[in-house]
Amino acid sequence: MPDYVTDAADPRLTDYTRLRDVDLRKSLEAERGLFVAEGEKVIRRAIAAGYPIRSVLTTPRWLEPLADVLGDATVYVVSDETMLGVAGFQVHRGALASMERLPLPPVEEVLAGTSRVVVLEDLVDHSNVGAIFRCAAALGVEGIVLSPRCADPLYRRSVKVSMGAVFSIPYGRMDDWYGGLERIRTAGYTLLALTPDQRVTPIDKVKMGERAALLLGSEGDGLSSRWMREADESVCIPMSPAAMAAGVDSLNVVAAAAIACHSLTRVDGA
Amino acid sequence: MPDYVTDAADPRLTDYTRLRDVDLRKSLEAERGLFVAEGEKVIRRAIAAGYPIRSVLTTPRWLEPLADVLGDATVYVVSDETMLGVAGFQVHRGALASMERLPLPPVEEVLAGTSRVVVLEDLVDHSNVGAIFRCAAALGVEGIVLSPRCADPLYRRSVKVSMGAVFSIPYGRMDDWYGGLERIRTAGYTLLALTPDQRVTPIDKVKMGERAALLLGSEGDGLSSRWMREADESVCIPMSPAAMAAGVDSLNVVAAAAIACHSLTRVDGA
Repeated sequence: MPDYVTDAADPRLTDYTRLRDVDLRKSLEAERGLFVAEGEKVIRRAIAAGYPIRSVLTTPRWLEPLADVLGDATVYVVSDETMLGVAGFQVHRGALASMERLPLPPVEEVLAGTSRVVVLEDLVDHSNVGAIFRCAAALGVEGIVLSPRCADPLYRRSVKVSMGAVFSIPYGRMDDWYGGLERIRTAGYTLLALTPDQRVTPIDKVKMGERAALLLGSEGDGLSSRWMREADESVCIPMSPAAMAAGVDSLNVVAAAAIACHSLTRVDGA
Repeated sequence: MPDYVTDAADPRLTDYTRLRDVDLRKSLEAERGLFVAEGEKVIRRAIAAGYPIRSVLTTPRWLEPLADVLGDATVYVVSDETMLGVAGFQVHRGALASMERLPLPPVEEVLAGTSRVVVLEDLVDHSNVGAIFRCAAALGVEGIVLSPRCADPLYRRSVKVSMGAVFSIPYGRMDDWYGGLERIRTAGYTLLALTPDQRVTPIDKVKMGERAALLLGSEGDGLSSRWMREADESVCIPMSPAAMAAGVDSLNVVAAAAIACHSLTRVDGA
């Protein structure tokens, strides 16, 4: 039986407090070991991926469409106005689920049995992380490794932008930025560093080995110089000289990641 | 000499009214034949591309960095608070320019001398249009043709997301959706329709002719069935079967456009 709640300050709803307050959410979600899935489709994918439900918060309209997957989960039903009061904005498609995080697998486990992976260094934007997971999953990348400081794929925005791809592609987080790449190489991976520098090998021309890892850097600065040095080869996406002369000198990180993942997962190698 | 304005309701500032009100802006900009450039870099690119300045609205902080390109343009200087009152939100990097639109060239003129172009059918999201212009320009696409109903590249969000690429890549708008593609074919173009359908030729395997036009459809529905039928060939971006089984069944339109433009502009043809 769902619980009808009318007070936005009800303590049972605190998993959902102020969803747009990034700092609050980061500490709250870490403390409680939860993440928030938003919208019917994403909630279904989170449940299907095996994440336990802590509770669901929904307006009456979205209770029925989700009924078949909620089992005996705790469900709070609120008005649009109470939802706004709790979450701090008008929630898209009116349903939220607070899910338990599961322990991330060690990086070696993510890499086991894979041949094409992506490594993200220090991306700060949750939407970009979600969009890259979506691309990588759609294009057949088999695993993702995050640097210690890379933004969280289970943050609400990441989950939403990924369309749930964060549940379908295995990922892990290095515990050591300094030595992390070496462990990926030890697993048999060739490390390819993506850079805007047009003097290096175009990614389409690289002979992909049996196991290739694509390194993608942060939005502003790209890969750190340490990771650039540690990589086995630097690769670029060829740009138009005319565009570069006109000051259109780079792709955004998601567009670059899409093209690079497409090259990385070519069936024919190169 | 800049004019210091203190009243957000001053009639001289109405070019900048409620910038997030899409409906208001569409009609106001069409009536007055203007568009709004936001931020120093984008304003510089608009001026360099030859768009005449109607006026500039800035906070004191951004007056100096722009001084060298403003010539004798009308400049209104306001406080952060007045800026918020006029524009309706806290303007990023505090400078806006109202620029005069120039007449768009006929489609035949956009196509003259080009060999790789993109045709956008009915995209509705201004950010997506801007992002596709940025990708297309960076990757060496030489021109863009818009369907009659495609979202406006000079809308503020498009301009901003494109980083000014809307000024560097020539584009035009069909006056006739029904007969528009035929005119592109008459100009010697092979029409390639991008579709998620995995049964068609992968875009990397297509023999690009001398002149190839890539057709991209709207965010929700993709290309219309009429355009799909009219195209010379349908092409797809190969997806991971595992991801499709898990419900991650498509790339977003910008990621797809990035990959497709990269394939379209390969130097080696294929």
